[in-house]
Amino acid sequence: MLAPGQTIGILGGGQLGRMMALAAARLGLKCHIYCPDAASPAFEVAATHTIAAYDDEAALARFADSVDVVTYEFENVPGETAAFLEARRPVRPGPKALAVSQDRLVEKRFIADLGIAVAPFAEVTGEATLESALARFKGRGVLKTRRFGYDGKGQVMLRSANDVVGALARIANAPAILEGLVDFEREVSIIVARGLDGTVEAFDLAWNTHAHHILDRTRVPAGVSPETEAEARRIGETIAAALDYVGVLAVELFLVRDGAGEHLVVNEIAPRVHNSGHWTEDACLVSQFEQHVRAVAGWPLGEPTRLADVEMENLVGADADRWAEIAAEPGARLHLYGKAESRPGRKMGHVNRLKLG
Amino acid sequence: MLAPGQTIGILGGGQLGRMMALAAARLGLKCHIYCPDAASPAFEVAATHTIAAYDDEAALARFADSVDVVTYEFENVPGETAAFLEARRPVRPGPKALAVSQDRLVEKRFIADLGIAVAPFAEVTGEATLESALARFKGRGVLKTRRFGYDGKGQVMLRSANDVVGALARIANAPAILEGLVDFEREVSIIVARGLDGTVEAFDLAWNTHAHHILDRTRVPAGVSPETEAEARRIGETIAAALDYVGVLAVELFLVRDGAGEHLVVNEIAPRVHNSGHWTEDACLVSQFEQHVRAVAGWPLGEPTRLADVEMENLVGADADRWAEIAAEPGARLHLYGKAESRPGRKMGHVNRLKLG
Repeated sequence: MLAPGQTIGILGGGQLGRMMALAAARLGLKCHIYCPDAASPAFEVAATHTIAAYDDEAALARFADSVDVVTYEFENVPGETAAFLEARRPVRPGPKALAVSQDRLVEKRFIADLGIAVAPFAEVTGEATLESALARFKGRGVLKTRRFGYDGKGQVMLRSANDVVGALARIANAPAILEGLVDFEREVSIIVARGLDGTVEAFDLAWNTHAHHILDRTRVPAGVSPETEAEARRIGETIAAALDYVGVLAVELFLVRDGAGEHLVVNEIAPRVHNSGHWTEDACLVSQFEQHVRAVAGWPLGEPTRLADVEMENLVGADADRWAEIAAEPGARLHLYGKAESRPGRKMGHVNRLKLG
Repeated sequence: MLAPGQTIGILGGGQLGRMMALAAARLGLKCHIYCPDAASPAFEVAATHTIAAYDDEAALARFADSVDVVTYEFENVPGETAAFLEARRPVRPGPKALAVSQDRLVEKRFIADLGIAVAPFAEVTGEATLESALARFKGRGVLKTRRFGYDGKGQVMLRSANDVVGALARIANAPAILEGLVDFEREVSIIVARGLDGTVEAFDLAWNTHAHHILDRTRVPAGVSPETEAEARRIGETIAAALDYVGVLAVELFLVRDGAGEHLVVNEIAPRVHNSGHWTEDACLVSQFEQHVRAVAGWPLGEPTRLADVEMENLVGADADRWAEIAAEPGARLHLYGKAESRPGRKMGHVNRLKLG
């Protein structure tokens, strides 16, 4: 258990690392941010930072020596980096969470093996396997690289057998999977935290809508049945336990409605705090960032009780130019990430709008 | 109006500066902390810091050049420092608030001149004036230095005419006032914010109890009549307007009950965020720290709506050793200031306990 004054090392210096560092500071814990980008938003709110590449072993060794535990804000931490650090300090969540979530094929097999429904998927090793999988998925699917994709990058939508031509070239012939399309009613996500002692706490289920493959809005409550909400929690808890997870884990799900009622199908998992959990900062007793800090520090988890209905709006690119208008909006809780440069598609901030009775 | 990415300069690097910096970071504003103490808790959560004395004009000039507005976490900013900075950058709250609040005699006259009840007071220029004032206050009163006292320092309790002997020596014969004792039922405080445009927003009235001259607990609601609550707001707004104030202002009051009902008597004011406003961090839509940041940045004020009843407990000295127990307490919101060394009487953190329906 880290004592106040001890240090959490965070790999990655973006807005997620920044919000973790702010949560840690409130609890009297220090952060050391490690990121290759000299303009990292998290540097400004952390006690210490290191600007170095993720394969710079001298810098990694100094970093490990200066911290008491290591965590990360992104799932694409190179395996060698994680292993190097793991030999020196606890890395939480552990290597299994990274190994599983860095490979879409491994991840889907892992979840399916737990008896949890996942979107239909097939391994793609070339045009032949792509064609046969697409035929199996009734001519429609999304070709995705197995590794290192996010926010719609490294993905090709296929709508007919004709689309196979050139599709693999568009993902640079990387190892891939084809995902069948799920006829979903809405996309939801569950954010769970698992402590060092195995305790799990889940936030309320959230309903997510996207624009241009980037999260646009999150609404809570998600508007599903109590049974579906309970099922989502069970899924989150099962996955976290199976990964021997420590920290905050996000599970993105499809809500499917058919004759038999509502079902949940896992889309993907993220072994970290998640954009669809930003609403917790203002609507809950404890935020996802504080929960993550508590978990990786070995502290007891907080109470994820929700105090109000809420809608989170992402401020992407020029959306953040509306900051003055949002700042003047009654009840709107504005969050800006301190990024110097606004670019199309870049997450600049978000706003939580609480619905008070 | 400061835009995101611009910088607030803060004089003082203690817990108040730290919590201001955390609030500013959430809004995408940077902070530059100026403090002579190399171990300042606020340094760790701010983009920039300067370690220099408050009379180091070269350092002050560099500081002013690097920021867009200056504010402070303590009212005892030397007048010369404020004037030096004021010539270069806006200082908010302005010099009038400092001049009034740095001198107990000036402060009490200022408030009395506004037609607001203050505790009985008399200027003390030597033993003769002290004796006559004490006689007027029926033999009981508190001798206080006019300047630079806080948390019970620079104060001598007088219970009879005999106590006059040596009393002035105990405050080093500094210019002083004698305050008559007020037979109060409870101590309360009102935290108001005044924006650059003159808008005022008040938080709910808080009830404060002290231990060893240091704030121990703050409870909200304060348990007074709606009329008293409204009167407290009116007092806060009147003082803020009269000071042409920009930022958060705390007014400490005595609640007196007599045959005619409840009355409020001003004890003292603090031109800054205040320990008795820490409950706002977890119980309100916007905290006192964010309100202060908004005001000094020229932003519109936020909504100070309270979401729950709350009790704040200060963690002073060894109280903070209970951090692990408090961290495990359901619904308790722990705040630690990152101070390396715990000393008796030193404010180490606080905890807000929300009472959810």
